[in-house]
Order: sequence, then structure tokens, then C-alpha cells
Amino acid sequence: MYRTKTCGELRLSNVSEEVTLAGWVQRVRKMGGMTFIDLRDRYGITQLVTDEATSAQLNGLVEKLGREFVIQATGIVMERQSKNPKIETGDIEIKLTDMKVLNPSVTPPFTIEDESDGGEELRAKFRYLDLRRNPLKRALYLRHKMAHEVRNYLDSQNFIEIETPYLIKSTPEGARDFVVPSRMNPGEFYALPQSPQQQKQLLMVAGYDRYFQIVRCFRDEDLRADRQPEFTQIDCEMSFVERDDVLNTFEGMIKSLFKNILGIEINYDFPRMPYSQAMSMYGSDKPDIRFGMTLHDITDIAKGHNFSVFDSAEYVGSIVVKGASDYTRKQLDELTEWVKRPQIGAKGLVYVKCASDGSFKSSIDKFFTADDLRKVAQASEAEASDLILILSGPKTKMQTALGSLRIEMGNRLGLRDPKVFAPLWVVDFPLLEWDDETQRFYAMHHPFTSPKPEHLEYFYSNKKEDLAMVCANAYDFVLNGTEVGGGSIRIHDSKIQERMFEVLGFSKEDADYRFGFLINAFKYGAPPHGGIAFGFDRFCALFGGQETIRDYIAFPKNNQGRDVMLDAPSRIDHSQMEELFLESTYNENKVN
Amino acid sequence: MYRTKTCGELRLSNVSEEVTLAGWVQRVRKMGGMTFIDLRDRYGITQLVTDEATSAQLNGLVEKLGREFVIQATGIVMERQSKNPKIETGDIEIKLTDMKVLNPSVTPPFTIEDESDGGEELRAKFRYLDLRRNPLKRALYLRHKMAHEVRNYLDSQNFIEIETPYLIKSTPEGARDFVVPSRMNPGEFYALPQSPQQQKQLLMVAGYDRYFQIVRCFRDEDLRADRQPEFTQIDCEMSFVERDDVLNTFEGMIKSLFKNILGIEINYDFPRMPYSQAMSMYGSDKPDIRFGMTLHDITDIAKGHNFSVFDSAEYVGSIVVKGASDYTRKQLDELTEWVKRPQIGAKGLVYVKCASDGSFKSSIDKFFTADDLRKVAQASEAEASDLILILSGPKTKMQTALGSLRIEMGNRLGLRDPKVFAPLWVVDFPLLEWDDETQRFYAMHHPFTSPKPEHLEYFYSNKKEDLAMVCANAYDFVLNGTEVGGGSIRIHDSKIQERMFEVLGFSKEDADYRFGFLINAFKYGAPPHGGIAFGFDRFCALFGGQETIRDYIAFPKNNQGRDVMLDAPSRIDHSQMEELFLESTYNENKVN
Repeated sequence: MYRTKTCGELRLSNVSEEVTLAGWVQRVRKMGGMTFIDLRDRYGITQLVTDEATSAQLNGLVEKLGREFVIQATGIVMERQSKNPKIETGDIEIKLTDMKVLNPSVTPPFTIEDESDGGEELRAKFRYLDLRRNPLKRALYLRHKMAHEVRNYLDSQNFIEIETPYLIKSTPEGARDFVVPSRMNPGEFYALPQSPQQQKQLLMVAGYDRYFQIVRCFRDEDLRADRQPEFTQIDCEMSFVERDDVLNTFEGMIKSLFKNILGIEINYDFPRMPYSQAMSMYGSDKPDIRFGMTLHDITDIAKGHNFSVFDSAEYVGSIVVKGASDYTRKQLDELTEWVKRPQIGAKGLVYVKCASDGSFKSSIDKFFTADDLRKVAQASEAEASDLILILSGPKTKMQTALGSLRIEMGNRLGLRDPKVFAPLWVVDFPLLEWDDETQRFYAMHHPFTSPKPEHLEYFYSNKKEDLAMVCANAYDFVLNGTEVGGGSIRIHDSKIQERMFEVLGFSKEDADYRFGFLINAFKYGAPPHGGIAFGFDRFCALFGGQETIRDYIAFPKNNQGRDVMLDAPSRIDHSQMEELFLESTYNENKVN
Repeated sequence: MYRTKTCGELRLSNVSEEVTLAGWVQRVRKMGGMTFIDLRDRYGITQLVTDEATSAQLNGLVEKLGREFVIQATGIVMERQSKNPKIETGDIEIKLTDMKVLNPSVTPPFTIEDESDGGEELRAKFRYLDLRRNPLKRALYLRHKMAHEVRNYLDSQNFIEIETPYLIKSTPEGARDFVVPSRMNPGEFYALPQSPQQQKQLLMVAGYDRYFQIVRCFRDEDLRADRQPEFTQIDCEMSFVERDDVLNTFEGMIKSLFKNILGIEINYDFPRMPYSQAMSMYGSDKPDIRFGMTLHDITDIAKGHNFSVFDSAEYVGSIVVKGASDYTRKQLDELTEWVKRPQIGAKGLVYVKCASDGSFKSSIDKFFTADDLRKVAQASEAEASDLILILSGPKTKMQTALGSLRIEMGNRLGLRDPKVFAPLWVVDFPLLEWDDETQRFYAMHHPFTSPKPEHLEYFYSNKKEDLAMVCANAYDFVLNGTEVGGGSIRIHDSKIQERMFEVLGFSKEDADYRFGFLINAFKYGAPPHGGIAFGFDRFCALFGGQETIRDYIAFPKNNQGRDVMLDAPSRIDHSQMEELFLESTYNENKVN
């Protein structure tokens, strides 16, 4: 061992001990005849000190030290004259008696500090240096602790972690698979799993009762910001359970994470909100319930004032921004532009300012009397000094737009403190989604998701309206406006499964071709079962109080799916292609 | 929840409780007016009972039950008349009051018993049924417990589990990579990692100090028996350590596994045997030290008797089979054929029988007097009633052949009890291997493996003999004749690294092209570091007392790299190929 202690552990009680430390030179400072060196390792920073009275040889070595040199330093622990309360070892320093440079360093391309001067691209290229910074070290340590806690909790609940294969079969449904050509089976390909969904259901058929796995998943999607082609899931499945058994089990897991990782004791049941309520109250299937500002349906009140925009709208809805009645014309114009962006898609924004004296000022004064506006304010639960924002148009689209506006206003008003946590279950999602173009229903989750038992009557109806009303026995875990987990009770009854395929318009041949293998397994005694999967990268980021997942992944890819540090993907040898019986049809000149 | 208790937990203390169980019908037996049903779940088997006095409806249901039906059963816990001491619930049975078939089952293609009647191929195809059998359940549960124990131990030792990417860059050195075409980066490929070697070394450069990961690795090799294209490693790396720090740390981990998984307390230090000794004493770099039968070099004694086979041999070696002097001609002929198989490669086998009366009988009586044979027996440490087996030829080849013969005789004599464990470190491997064909040295491990500090002098010599003598600072963990782990102290000194590349005959350009990225990272302050990786599948199998790893993997592949259950790999849609800018050059008709 190159050290007797780490840079994070020495205290006043160690004074006068001889110790050897090893680590990286964070900083060298000269003051009068003294030289101070901050030595850093994973565990902390310890100050080393030499003075002119020290041996010439040692001073000569110290002279040559640069940032990020790796050294081994021996000396005596001394009490500091001027203590540093900001670091845990701030009461002591090491008076150097010996030092050895284990490895020099060229000057790093950016500073290794909590706030670095390196741009994102540069830090990605030198990820191994960026990873030296405290925020990333804390992020990866948090991730380790969370994974460990998840495993301990699930183990204590009789779950078994079972590894499922990464080289599986490509499935024609769902997102795009990454594929892996097989050399031993020429012309054939494995697929990397988008999730171990089939495998975990098979493990239930196999009687494993409670399965989990912290597992990598792969999806070859066009990458939106903060998506990764490979991501990690806490994947779980249970047998002989109903919905509330699953929710209670994982509510327990989440509470234990809050307690043991963040020290936050949550001693209430997580709210369980139906999808329909989430949409009508929050305009989102993943509401952030840290703050109010809920949606109000004011369609009835808004109509009949000769304002054609409202009169022709399916839905008129409002949110109330507390104490914002003094918003300026400019601020309101800017908000109007914001909601008209294509991502939001509103045609315009109507506002009503509720002045502190009880009067109103609105962009619809021409059509609405003061009394009309009072009714709008009442229906919106607005008070004096509040600002009412109103959108109108197709119902679902405008609810969603109001939901986005609500989040935006929450951000602007500082109502979304990342240190405050509001967990939530969203339940009772629609089972089916009608697609006008193909004139058929699609499974909102996947075709193995069970309808709610109390909706079976509608499920067997042949009316489109009835089928559209069927709720799935599915659920999402939502934290602070982010969907962190989702799952469902699966269909285990072959008659219901057949009906599901019928509703989705699959012929028996279709169904067999797509899912035959799972359907077949289910003939041999499938237990009732259900499960859930959590997005682990996002879960960690939220626990760390961050929006972006990239710092919670040791070696992430960029938005083009590239690892810029490794410079991957890359071309491979022609001989490698030949062994795989492959030829590239890509013509670089043509495309670039 | 479909049950109030599991099938493994009811005892006499539960008698007269009403309980509901759910599980699979293992067996239905009629005896007189009684019907007994063995109900199975992951946790055990519980006997259900009905009699003719039970309701007609319930009896009607029971009538229809078949093997592997999934049922929910409610009843009263009763003390059994005839107890079954073989199962933990054998003191009680459940007198049925209600029952529901949750799912019927078609008749499984083989019996779900400890010893199944299904062939290997059939069981692989219906893996989800094979997984219901106790031996597989026990194997996967053992695997879960081992992984959990490894994580707890390493966490307690300040190791952080860090996930490294699965989509990385193809490297031109080493075994064959599986590659993944990138759609977003046309013409380019990711590679699946053969191990996270580079990433874990980068994590040391990044200051993470102690890393581990239980991680999947991929190798596109022609599959020998009991190899898998994807396999799991316990991958570890530490900074500021020397060899013994690594060995001590992981010896601690292994001892904790033995103690907490198998209840075996190992209170001695694992032997640390130099490679040269392993070869000379056991004819293997992974000796099984559960039994003796060590090799003896009798070259000097064997020569000079006009027996040209010995006289012309570089090496003559023997092993002694205790008490086997009564081997018949037929047995010896069969052994001779065994050593002459190409895998062993001996030209023939010489034997000396040491009769109980002190006389000798050998296949070389023509050349060796009784006195000569006595000397052979003495040098081989043979006693009366023993059988001496002798091979001669090129040294390393014959040592290895004797090593194989030793293992074979160990098997035949029952000296290799899978319940007995003999852990061992093999150390001081040669750093370099000379290849006559290409007239150059190859790294025996990889080019980042450090030479032993005390051999640096030879390392800088230009003589081939000197370089061949350099030992690597590398080590293997061997358990019962199987290499379970291996690792090394890495080179962190750029001068030694340059010399290594020079010895391997890489130009600076070569080295940069192959390893530039890691060499570059090392310029920014690389700490001294080293690590180890354990083959987790094999480790589990050995702990389970099994030779084959297949039962310790939930969904393994066969020898052609196929998942016969999923029927993967498979053809993919032409559109998928087009998106990836790929064309298959494989002509099925031509090859088949």
C-alpha cells in the first residue's frame, strides 16, 4: 500500500502521528518561507506543508510539483494555526518529511474544481479528468449508494436478482432495436434488449415469484436531449399480486431510499391519482404536485360572450399565477409567444389581471364585463393581485399546453425546489389509444397489460366509445413532474389475451408471429403477475437534485450517440465485416 | 395478494389457522376417499387434502386438476397423520375449504422433478419449465446470494460499483468483438466490451480509488463446451496498491463468501504458488491442490539405460497413483490410449508397478534393473502397492500432459470431492511469451501488465533469454483446478510502458493507434493501480458443486451461441438492414 491514511480521515486526534498519504496535487501555494500543498484523493483534501528549513532535496522536489501530479507524501500530523472549517481535515496539516512523485501530469485542459472552466465538449473528451471533479464524484457515489440500497431493500423483501441475457431476439413491435450480427449464425442477428420484459414474465411462469434486476437497456431512438442509447432500469416483477400489492411494495422501497440516502422520512401514503384527474387538474400524465396552480375548466363560463375564439373552442381552461397581477405588457407578450411555440401549440393567450382593489383588466375586456370576469376569477379560484392565464381549443391539447405553461410558471416563480420531493402514483391509464390514420386501437403500454377488472364489460363491448373508456391496470411513479417508473398487472388469462389481440386487430397468425413464444409459455400455468421498472439514471439525478442525467453516468454518450472520449462508434476492419458476411452500402460522399 | 402464506412457511404452530396459498400443482394422489394435492411455489411444497365429505363443487374442481395447474387454495392448517420429514412443511397439511383454478396448464413436455425425464435440447427449448425444477431454482438463488454478498463485502471495503458502457469501441487486439452497427453514425460500429479493462483503468486515473462492478462481458469466440458468448465478471480495480494489497483484499472477499454462503470458515492464508512451481509440481497453471499425486522430475535417473525414448527426451516425469499396483494390462492399455489422444499428446505411457513384496514390474523391464526401478520409485516417492506413471518428451508439453493425467486419475480415484474446497493464488507468471512464427514476444496478459519490480533489470536487457525470465506482477485465483479469477498490477510509469511496447515490437505509431487513448489519459497523473476480475458464472457453479455453468445462468445459449428458447439470433427485416446501411453477403445455398 502506498499510504497509511487517506486524504479524508485525519483529525486533531491524529496530531503527532507519522502518516503517509497518496493523491493528486490540487494546488501549491507559497507564503513567505512556507509552501502549502493541497493533496486530494477520493476521500478528501489534506494540506501538506514545508518550510525553508526542510531539506534542500525535499524543497527541490516541491518546487517542481504541478497541478494533478500524483505524489506520495510522508510527514507528521500537526494542528493548524489557521483552521479551515470548510473541509473535514481543516484542523490539521502534515509537516512533510518525505515526498515522492509517483507520476507527473501535463497541465490538464481545464481546472479540476467544483465549477470548471472547461466547456461541455472538452470535458466530455477528457471525461476521466472531468470525473475528478467533486460534483461528478458525488453523483457517482450517490448512484452506488442508491443501487446498493435498492438491492438491500428488495433482498429483504424476498426478491431475487436474476441476470437476463443481453443477446436476445429482435422483436418487430416497439422502438428500434440495436442489433448484433452473429458470426456463428451467418445472416442472423441478435438484438440488444429494450427491456427484459419477456424474460421477466417468463421468470414468473417459471415460478420465481419475485424478480428484480438493475439492468442495462438499449433503444436505438433518435436522441432527444438527455436521452441515452443505453440506460439503466430497476426492473421488477411479482407473482400472485394485484395492483396495490405492487404499489405498496415499491412505495416501501422508495421510502427506504428517501430515508437511507437523503435522510428524508416520508410518513404518509403517496397519493394515487387517476390519469383523468392528472390531465384535468395538471394537464399532464406526470404532474409536479410540489405546487398548486391547478387547471380550471371554465368552458361553460367562457362561452356566450360573442368571443368567437372561446365560443368555438371545445375547452377553455385557466391557471392562476399568485400575486402576478402586476405583470407588464412585455412580460405577457413574451408569455404569449412562449405558448405559441410549436412545442406548446396554443393559438394565443388570454389573461385576466385581478387588481388589488377588486377590479379586473384583461385582454378580453371587449367581450367580458367586470361581472363576467369576476365569474371567471371565481371559477379559477383567483384572488386579488393574481394573474389568470387562459388557453382555449381542443381539450386534450389545451390541457397539455396549460400543463406546460404551469410548469414554466412554476420554474419562473421558483416553486420547483429540487430539494423538495413530491412522490405520486398515477393510475388508471387508458388501455387503448385510437389511431385515426390506421383506424385501429393501439395498446397504450404493451399488449400484455391487463384491463382493470371492473372494466371488463366495456372491454368485451364492440363499441369504440366503450373500448376507449377501458382503463388499464397500469401505473406510473412520478416524482416532481418526472415519470421515474411505470408498470402494470399483466394479462394471465388466455381468453382476455385473445380478446386483447382481437381488439388490437391482430389475426391469430399475427399474434403468433409477434408474440407466439410468450403466448406458448403462458399455456403451461402462468400465475397472475405484474411488475414495474424504474429509470435508474433519472431516479439518481432527481435524488441528486439535478435535471440532467449525464453527470450520473460515468461514461455517457452525446446527442449523436457518440462516446467522444473513446471516439465510438468507429469503422471496423474490412476483414471483420467479411467474417460477419456484411457489406456497408453507405456512401460517405453521397450523404455528406 | 392472492395468498396469505407461501407454500414453504406453515408449521405445527400454525395449526387451525385459515390460510390461502397459491402455486402450482406438483402432484395429485387419490387414496381411498381422500385426495392429496402437493402445491408448489418458490418457497416450498404444502400438502392440500380433501375428502368425499367435502362439497361436490370443490371435489369436482379437484377432479379436473392436472400437473402444473396454477391454483389458489384456502383451508385450515391441520396436523398430519403421517408426517413427511423430508420437507419443511411435512408436519402439516391444509384441509381445503375453497379452491380456484387461476390458470390451467397443458401437459408439460417433461416432468418437473429434481431428476427430469427431459433431454437437454427439450429442456433448453422450454427453459421456463426447466427453471421450475429445484436444482435450477437453488442454482439461481445461490447466484443471487453470492452477488449480494460480493456487493456487501466490497461496499464495506469502500469499493464503489460504477456502471461502464456496453456500447464501446472495437479494439484490434485480443479476442473477437461482437459489433453493433450504428444507425445514427452510418458505416460505423460500436463493440460490446470483452471486459471493462480500459474503463476501469480510466476510473483509477479519475481518482475513484476502489471500483467494482458485476458486469456482463462479450466474446465472439468459437465456443468450446461450457463457454458462453456473454458471461458475467466481478470486475475490480484499486489504486495506490501493490500485489499483496490486492490479494489480501480479495482473499477477504472470498473467505466471506465461503463463510456466509456455504458456512465454511477458512482460517488459513491461501497458498501463493509461483507459476513455475505450479507447472513443475502439478503440470498446470491452475492446479487442483485438493489432492497430492504431484509430478516428479526423474529425467536424470531415467537417462542412461539405453532406452532411447528416455535418452532422447528433454524431460521425463512421473506421478504416483497410490495403491494402484494391481492395475490390469487392460486398464493400463486404456490409460495409454488416453494419454495418446491429441488433446494430451503423449507418445506413450511407461508404468512401474511397485508390488507389495518390494518387487517391481514395469513396461521398461528390458532396460531397467530392479535397482534402477527402485531409484525411479524413490525419486517418485512411491511406496509398496503404488503405480508409477511416466511420460517423456518436451518439458512443458509433458508437464502439462502429466498434469492432465493427474486430474484424470484424481477423478477416477474420487479425490476431487466438489464439497471440498482448496483455494490458491498462482503468482509470478511470465510477462512475455515468445512466438517462433512471428519471431516476437507477446504479452501473456495484456500490454499494461507490470513486470515484477525485482525483474526490471532483465526487462531492460536485450537478450531474449533475459526477457523470457521476466515475471509479470500478475496473479490468478484458482479453486479446485479451475481458474476463477485473474489480474495484475498495471504499468503506471510511462517509461516502463514505452519499454513494454518496444519489447513487443510496437512502433510509437503502432502503440498510439492501438492504445493511444489510454496512453494519453495516463499523461494526466495516473496513480499506481491494479485489479482483478472473477468469472462469476464459474464461481457460482463451483460453489454449487457443479462442473457446468449452464444451470447457473437463467437463459444460457447453446454451443452454437443460440438461445433455442427464443430462437435467437434470427433474420431481421430488410428495412432494418437498409436503415443500418448494411447488406448481407451470406449465400445460404452455397454454404449449406
